[in-house]
Amino acid sequence: MSSACLIIIGNEILSGRTQDLNLAFLGKRMNEIGIRLVEARVIADDFETIINTLNECRNKYDHVFTTGGIGPTHDDITSAAVAEAFGLPLIRDPEAVALLCQHYANAEDLNEQRLKMCEVPEGAILVDNPISKAPGYQIGNVFVLAGVPRIMQAMYEALKERLIPGKPMKSRTIVAFMGEGSLAKGLGDVQNAHSETEIGSYPFIRNGKLGTALVLRGADQDALNEATEAVTELVSGFDVEHFEESSAE
Amino acid sequence: MSSACLIIIGNEILSGRTQDLNLAFLGKRMNEIGIRLVEARVIADDFETIINTLNECRNKYDHVFTTGGIGPTHDDITSAAVAEAFGLPLIRDPEAVALLCQHYANAEDLNEQRLKMCEVPEGAILVDNPISKAPGYQIGNVFVLAGVPRIMQAMYEALKERLIPGKPMKSRTIVAFMGEGSLAKGLGDVQNAHSETEIGSYPFIRNGKLGTALVLRGADQDALNEATEAVTELVSGFDVEHFEESSAE
Repeated sequence: MSSACLIIIGNEILSGRTQDLNLAFLGKRMNEIGIRLVEARVIADDFETIINTLNECRNKYDHVFTTGGIGPTHDDITSAAVAEAFGLPLIRDPEAVALLCQHYANAEDLNEQRLKMCEVPEGAILVDNPISKAPGYQIGNVFVLAGVPRIMQAMYEALKERLIPGKPMKSRTIVAFMGEGSLAKGLGDVQNAHSETEIGSYPFIRNGKLGTALVLRGADQDALNEATEAVTELVSGFDVEHFEESSAE
Repeated sequence: MSSACLIIIGNEILSGRTQDLNLAFLGKRMNEIGIRLVEARVIADDFETIINTLNECRNKYDHVFTTGGIGPTHDDITSAAVAEAFGLPLIRDPEAVALLCQHYANAEDLNEQRLKMCEVPEGAILVDNPISKAPGYQIGNVFVLAGVPRIMQAMYEALKERLIPGKPMKSRTIVAFMGEGSLAKGLGDVQNAHSETEIGSYPFIRNGKLGTALVLRGADQDALNEATEAVTELVSGFDVEHFEESSAE
């Protein structure tokens, strides 16, 4: 199974001002096409940090996604850092310029700062942005995307054919209104007997009621179904409300 | 200013099943007490990965927080990995056992799996969990907390006196309903003239309307106010709706 890593670039995420939504989105999409999202990093808008993190991650993982820092303002330094990380010159991409020329009807709106959004490392392949036109791009195994979730998501749809897919990850979820501690022994036994399926146990508090979500994940549907049956049998042994929850994944 | 890093441990965050809320919470709290949250990492429930990430981060940052993986089930491996990372034995803490004994009225409920929640690296100092009793703990500069946001937040309140505080980060936010590209030149000039204040520009789409949030952050209130005045003056030069937004930070 090929691997992926997400690098979330932005002081606003670390300061708590902005709630990141891109990680959960990408995680779900990776399941669908059978790529394992192995790690995510949230880093500041700092030139050296971006370079070092990118170089570490692009050597370690098959796919690297970055979000944030490709706008027109002074704090948008991702592209300069990506070019530096790859040791490539930052060039003004003619195709990107043409896209922005179409988008900004008044020539004066296409100022120097907006043209910064056309700068990519030499050799980059653009990623379409149907929302606000300024493109993302791919360079090597790195996909450089916008931070605004709606734009990031549209860019993902535009690039997904370029990824190396695997067997989609499927999942099933059993919810039981009980503490996970009472289930733990039996659940560990089920996990040992069904090693092909990954079983996670996630306690939650819903309307003041304690419950546990038992999430089963795997690429093999039959193995997943068998493990889910075993978990359902385990939970049925307790006198508590339980049901299968439709998986959003 | 002292530094902090958050390590979010859990397959459910990387699979997109669970939306992380702990990063935004911690980021806001760090602003309040003047600690810089420099980085966050989201990693899988994998023994070696937890050890390596923890050892890298605890050497690099003044404070490290971990969330997740301290429950009673087979996939809760954080404490074993933390002990291994520190080269310390994992011991059953008598104080933690006493806490759980009080919590579980029926002795049979305090099974071997739940007692796993009392295992900490030798020398750890417990962190109170007023919600479900099973404690977090501190070992060296590392704070090991629960993943469930309500419990994580309660644990943070219980430990915050142990952190090394600095000058609180203050922030002000100016919202303007315009693209950031038209502001970029002037904003860069304001940033250069007010280097003590960090100015971020964050485009958003609200009810289909494009806008930009200009976020100013700094520990010096006077410098922050001066920079905010300069940004307000800049924005006033455009014929668009704009206002100061009350900062949630």
